[in-house]
Amino acid sequence: MSLLVVGSVALDTVETPFGLVNEALGGSATYFSTAASFFTPVKLVAVVGQDFPDHHLSFLRQRQVDLAGLQIAPGRTFRWSGYYEYDMNSAHTRDTQLNVFASFHPQLPEAYSSCPFVFLANIDPELQMEVLQQVGKPRLVALDTMNYWIETKREALTKAVSMVDMVVMNEAEVREFGENASLIKAARRILGLGPRYLIIKKGEDGAVMVTASGFFVAPAYPLEDVRDPTGAGDTFAGGMMGYLARCGEPAIPNLRMGMIHGSVLASFTVEDFSLERLKVLTNDEIHNRVQEFKNFSCFVED
Amino acid sequence: MSLLVVGSVALDTVETPFGLVNEALGGSATYFSTAASFFTPVKLVAVVGQDFPDHHLSFLRQRQVDLAGLQIAPGRTFRWSGYYEYDMNSAHTRDTQLNVFASFHPQLPEAYSSCPFVFLANIDPELQMEVLQQVGKPRLVALDTMNYWIETKREALTKAVSMVDMVVMNEAEVREFGENASLIKAARRILGLGPRYLIIKKGEDGAVMVTASGFFVAPAYPLEDVRDPTGAGDTFAGGMMGYLARCGEPAIPNLRMGMIHGSVLASFTVEDFSLERLKVLTNDEIHNRVQEFKNFSCFVED
Repeated sequence: MSLLVVGSVALDTVETPFGLVNEALGGSATYFSTAASFFTPVKLVAVVGQDFPDHHLSFLRQRQVDLAGLQIAPGRTFRWSGYYEYDMNSAHTRDTQLNVFASFHPQLPEAYSSCPFVFLANIDPELQMEVLQQVGKPRLVALDTMNYWIETKREALTKAVSMVDMVVMNEAEVREFGENASLIKAARRILGLGPRYLIIKKGEDGAVMVTASGFFVAPAYPLEDVRDPTGAGDTFAGGMMGYLARCGEPAIPNLRMGMIHGSVLASFTVEDFSLERLKVLTNDEIHNRVQEFKNFSCFVED
Repeated sequence: MSLLVVGSVALDTVETPFGLVNEALGGSATYFSTAASFFTPVKLVAVVGQDFPDHHLSFLRQRQVDLAGLQIAPGRTFRWSGYYEYDMNSAHTRDTQLNVFASFHPQLPEAYSSCPFVFLANIDPELQMEVLQQVGKPRLVALDTMNYWIETKREALTKAVSMVDMVVMNEAEVREFGENASLIKAARRILGLGPRYLIIKKGEDGAVMVTASGFFVAPAYPLEDVRDPTGAGDTFAGGMMGYLARCGEPAIPNLRMGMIHGSVLASFTVEDFSLERLKVLTNDEIHNRVQEFKNFSCFVED
């Protein structure tokens, strides 16, 4: 089944202890779509400027990503510049230029409105709600966000959260939005707003799903070399949602296996800068790493 | 099979956002023995002062812990005082009084020398090696340590590590002792010194076992309320080693299931101060939580 994503397409300048890229392909919707495209057809809604390089569009088309919802606006593409130190769990921003993203309003092509799976990547919660007004009755809508919206638009974000089935946040965001130092208590408070599933991203410690009735703890792949963590969270979400859309039903076993696939895709993304690793990734490599996950997290009963 | 532990028995004064205890039962060997005693007979080697309360000894005896190796020396018992803030991943020390622990030299009763499973809790690596000179050919010897010994006795610690089968450390200690920002690279370097198994404790993110041929990732129990994290790591080690000693063979499936049992025991310890929760813990509660672990970490293949 098809999967709609609304988010950013960007040009990223990133420095880590292992190298540097200048104006490389980036953005939440880009990582998400590319990861999801290994499992299901993806429709992308975003905006780029007239300076956006053609070969990036060709790459997305080659991944079978539907670009009918990608606006090409007068002006420059959204740019982000940042760096990571040896502790690569947190990015340090050097510069953000919103450019054409500043006046972005998502407009869904007619054919997108019946999309059964929808992912609202990290953008202004007001824009996330504009998207919800343009879709019919999807089987699953998931939402990502960031500390900036929690701090500047809590009311709108709370409303948006109440309208979706799933929320995807990192640990610090869960504690901040749920206003509790206990991760699980904060999670329960967020579920109290309406969503059925909360997925907590824990970086190199994997991810946890919290529902009214239980938990699922997905490990992260123990990587020796992380070259650039940019896009790991969006790749995780893309792998998970892509897998779910392929299954067609957001049943718990599919959600669990979706989280494993998300972790697998993210483990490849961080092995190289930008989308370089995903560009050469094969289905066999994904399959093999899913098997490795099974091997290193299974235990038998006595 | 029986399990020998050498470590500290202490009186702890601990403050957390959820309460305070004054001179409560503590120490690495205490938490370790109590946790392990749910699975196997434990022999304890440590020292206390003449001020050590009798009822603590009675408690350990009631847990079937063999105290023939517990020295009662003239002077005061080892005391530690510390506090935790809302982020309970790290303890802040207020005061450490070594007292009788300052001149401690482990002396194993004759009957202890044939113990097949041995755990050297966090003490001076020179003392850990004194213990190794007094044991025969155990099936498995494991060693724990801390940043203080890494920084002040790296050479002795390196030698002790080379003499054991298993090393148990937290994440920061692995990075510091293995001298690499990449946890997995640091882990490989430690395994290069001789041990077959490295167990990395990650607090509320579980534990990872690294061997020459693979990984095992054990989740932590997602707890809503952590009242006092003191002793969690020693409880984890005690549950794991106790389970292994009960199995009799340190085969990989037993090690994996041992780590799950260690995580289960630790999840109980942190629910209350000192050993209060372990004092009332039942085998049924352990069994049920192991089942929960299975439920929240299993996933099926597509």
